[in-house]
Amino acid sequence: MGVNLRIAVVAPSCPLSREAADRLADIVAARADCEVRVHPQCFLSEGHFAGSDAERLAALREVMGDPAVDAIWFARGGYGSNRIAEAALADLPSTAHDKLYMGYSDAGFLHGGLSRAGLQAVWGPMPQDLIREGGEAAVKRALDWLVRRDPAALEPGLDGPAMAFNLTVLSSLLGTPLEPDLAGVDLLLEDVGEHHYRLDRTMFQLTSSANVRSVRRLRLGRVSDIPANHPEFGAEDEDIVRDWCERSGIPFGGRADIGHDSDNKVVPFRFGTD
Amino acid sequence: MGVNLRIAVVAPSCPLSREAADRLADIVAARADCEVRVHPQCFLSEGHFAGSDAERLAALREVMGDPAVDAIWFARGGYGSNRIAEAALADLPSTAHDKLYMGYSDAGFLHGGLSRAGLQAVWGPMPQDLIREGGEAAVKRALDWLVRRDPAALEPGLDGPAMAFNLTVLSSLLGTPLEPDLAGVDLLLEDVGEHHYRLDRTMFQLTSSANVRSVRRLRLGRVSDIPANHPEFGAEDEDIVRDWCERSGIPFGGRADIGHDSDNKVVPFRFGTD
Repeated sequence: MGVNLRIAVVAPSCPLSREAADRLADIVAARADCEVRVHPQCFLSEGHFAGSDAERLAALREVMGDPAVDAIWFARGGYGSNRIAEAALADLPSTAHDKLYMGYSDAGFLHGGLSRAGLQAVWGPMPQDLIREGGEAAVKRALDWLVRRDPAALEPGLDGPAMAFNLTVLSSLLGTPLEPDLAGVDLLLEDVGEHHYRLDRTMFQLTSSANVRSVRRLRLGRVSDIPANHPEFGAEDEDIVRDWCERSGIPFGGRADIGHDSDNKVVPFRFGTD
Repeated sequence: MGVNLRIAVVAPSCPLSREAADRLADIVAARADCEVRVHPQCFLSEGHFAGSDAERLAALREVMGDPAVDAIWFARGGYGSNRIAEAALADLPSTAHDKLYMGYSDAGFLHGGLSRAGLQAVWGPMPQDLIREGGEAAVKRALDWLVRRDPAALEPGLDGPAMAFNLTVLSSLLGTPLEPDLAGVDLLLEDVGEHHYRLDRTMFQLTSSANVRSVRRLRLGRVSDIPANHPEFGAEDEDIVRDWCERSGIPFGGRADIGHDSDNKVVPFRFGTD
């Protein structure tokens, strides 16, 4: 019997639901090609967060330092990983370097800092996706990639180094110690729950950045649950993104198969060259 | 009879309501110490905006270049001045330099660029405030300062160079050509309509900035219309701002008398030394 991939689940942002954790256990038991340990910190609750900053940080540092962990899987997005990311990445133990770090949405704050520190961030579905319609397929896709690098799990347009971020998260980490080096990558962006005027404002800030302007091209994932505005903004999400790409000289590379949904695909950061 | 202050109203963001314009005309007629011309561009409408980018830019450039205008008063906030600010500030005519530029909220994109270019930005009430409860007092306060520098109109804590911004607007212009030089100023911030988690995220980004860290101190205006969150965030607006000030070593200077309301006071940028 070979050694299964050992995955640790921690929640640097908001708590994991018990329901999602139970479904995850069933999926993992059925496939028998990996071990998944859900850290008890995932179920802590303090206001908005899965425990205090200190508790979330301690759990993350614990699994980063554990040589028996091959991959760290962020349980869920929401908000809050930015509050602990800088401390999580300080004085990194050598054991932190040979792991994968998978998640999306708010996990982008960590992904930014991780990629800057030379660690392997991976955009992909998370355990909490199991409460979505069709979420089981998303989580199986994530596991298929983690366990056996299943090419069917990958975003289909990847043909060189790439990174994927939530649009609002990426703009919120510009100028911070978590800002990744975007030079030469395909930058895949998606968003959820933001008004058109907010998307426009975010694209203004993003495309003003010399770092963002250094990407190979920008591709747009799904932009979902856009709240209604009165009057209507007057442009759709892709129009907005194309407009700011044109203004700033960033090549627009079309759509990307990522988003806050069960079809969300896997994007290993810098896949293709590194 | 002396020469009255000549004020031009333009709308770089969203349209001015006819109702507010009518009330403004009545107020100006009654006081007879200023002339206010509401540019017809204020009533244009294109989607979210008071006319197209080209129309809003043309109106703003027209009044900036008009030697018969002493003060430019932004009609209203909303969203959109960032789309034209850089072009508005390119190749400035000399006539643009001896004017005042008053507004708040979205006008902060212009104020950032104006102050960077050495022009006199002023945080203060706007004509559209006349549709607020108590808005007449706000607009009279703005006019009292523009016309005769009434000290009663000023934010009462000013005791040195200061700037005032909407928190979200300031974070959105970091790293852009509109970012003002904040060194040594009292930075007064307020916000409206943002969830606690958004305020926290914005403070994270702001207080990561070396420019923001160079302020003399940060003072917090009113933070209004915060949408409910489930679960509750776990900290109030002032807690959030104090926390990030502490983390980043920025002195917190207490509260400020500014906000999206009729009590909003006037803050002439860099008042006190320049």
